[in-house]
Amino acid sequence: MTIDNQAPLGVFDSGVGGLTVVRALREMLPNESIIYLGDTARLPYGSKSPDTIRRFAVEDTQFLVDHHVKAVVVACNTATAHALPHLQKTFRMPVIGVVEPGVEATLADTATQRVGIMATAGTIRSCAYQHAIAMQRPDVITEGKATPLLVPFIEEGWIDHPALELVLREYLKPMLDHGIDTLVLGCTHYPLLMPVLKRMLGNKVRLVDSASTCAAHTKRMLEAENLLRTSKARPVLEIHLTDYSEQFEALAHRFLGYEFGKIKKAVL
Amino acid sequence: MTIDNQAPLGVFDSGVGGLTVVRALREMLPNESIIYLGDTARLPYGSKSPDTIRRFAVEDTQFLVDHHVKAVVVACNTATAHALPHLQKTFRMPVIGVVEPGVEATLADTATQRVGIMATAGTIRSCAYQHAIAMQRPDVITEGKATPLLVPFIEEGWIDHPALELVLREYLKPMLDHGIDTLVLGCTHYPLLMPVLKRMLGNKVRLVDSASTCAAHTKRMLEAENLLRTSKARPVLEIHLTDYSEQFEALAHRFLGYEFGKIKKAVL
Repeated sequence: MTIDNQAPLGVFDSGVGGLTVVRALREMLPNESIIYLGDTARLPYGSKSPDTIRRFAVEDTQFLVDHHVKAVVVACNTATAHALPHLQKTFRMPVIGVVEPGVEATLADTATQRVGIMATAGTIRSCAYQHAIAMQRPDVITEGKATPLLVPFIEEGWIDHPALELVLREYLKPMLDHGIDTLVLGCTHYPLLMPVLKRMLGNKVRLVDSASTCAAHTKRMLEAENLLRTSKARPVLEIHLTDYSEQFEALAHRFLGYEFGKIKKAVL
Repeated sequence: MTIDNQAPLGVFDSGVGGLTVVRALREMLPNESIIYLGDTARLPYGSKSPDTIRRFAVEDTQFLVDHHVKAVVVACNTATAHALPHLQKTFRMPVIGVVEPGVEATLADTATQRVGIMATAGTIRSCAYQHAIAMQRPDVITEGKATPLLVPFIEEGWIDHPALELVLREYLKPMLDHGIDTLVLGCTHYPLLMPVLKRMLGNKVRLVDSASTCAAHTKRMLEAENLLRTSKARPVLEIHLTDYSEQFEALAHRFLGYEFGKIKKAVL
């Protein structure tokens, strides 16, 4: 099978949080077309079981394959953590997740000794980050913390609310008490928390965000596999959601940071 | 079609919150068998669009009908608000929702003048409570408030956390400023907030919970339709979930308040 390098990249997430990855992809790869699928009818994935997450991830990937993408980016930490190897075996095209790039960026600084990971319950339970870090740097101590209230706060738009700071303080306390030097934001919603986290943590803790590191990783893969789009025609961005509401549209704007065309309703 | 009064009651919700209704049903109707379906694979419904909620509600009801129930209780405010008339037209058996009983209980006190309603975004947007109250008592002023952070806090088990109080304070402020005398807890998760709400509101505001009012309504319907179970054999309680995880099981125990048998995995 040869892959058409003019074809679009496929990106999926359980919802619209994965648009933070699309935003980073468009900055690093402005000539690529992108088809995005957000499984908003069944979100969130983070609280659900591995079997169910895997089943959903296969259906999401199949939708993108049916739309003739050249590669698939799993812009969802939970789906990456539970389904990436399964997707890579099932589909005959490059499938990139968010965990490995995040781990790469975490370990790029060789002084890293103690890493905190904030993510959904599903991602933390999978130990995907903990395992990937241990495989490369067994001396690094990792500490995962399931932080299920953060996505609801972000979706409510309360990213500057005193209640969010109280919640973050409680989630971060054990990690800070143990002296983490790096904090991985292991959920594609969390880049929106960068300002409040920087304010709370100052320069004491390095923040690693899985959205921008995933985009950089995708760029290197496309270059290595000779899959960069060369056409001079304007690239497209299509957003498909399995459930449409005005709230999702407003959130999509917040995550993406700029205007986009009409959202399409996807049926899986 | 005749209905077998020895058959179980069917109850469904988007997740395990509807078990607060089951708990109330078991207290008021201890001789009834109950089959419960929680659509945990696709929860929550509260943030999704009317079309999607209706489609899910039909599939949930069909599952219960396939299990030969004698009546269906929609133990989910969002599904009731968007799908109840549609379900009542589609299925040839009694289908009871949570909104009407909550409205009855709200208006049972004739001194009621100003009613606050806390519920999911979907329930509030549907105006189901506002409409039902206006039809019976057009002089009563209603004020709905979407409170999407409450379910995540309850599912995280932080029902006594200072951050929850901050969130509640913000949600309640406009309603309290306008002098509500009654607050409807328009989501089957919210009965677990009774202690913190009572502490915050004292005796100033009457609290109406849709779980216990729905159970009372169901009892009256079964009596009126001569559908009470008369068998002396021990009634059963079966819990089916579309996604199983230990977290859902732990939550189910918290909502139901006592032990139950093995959870069954449902496929819709």
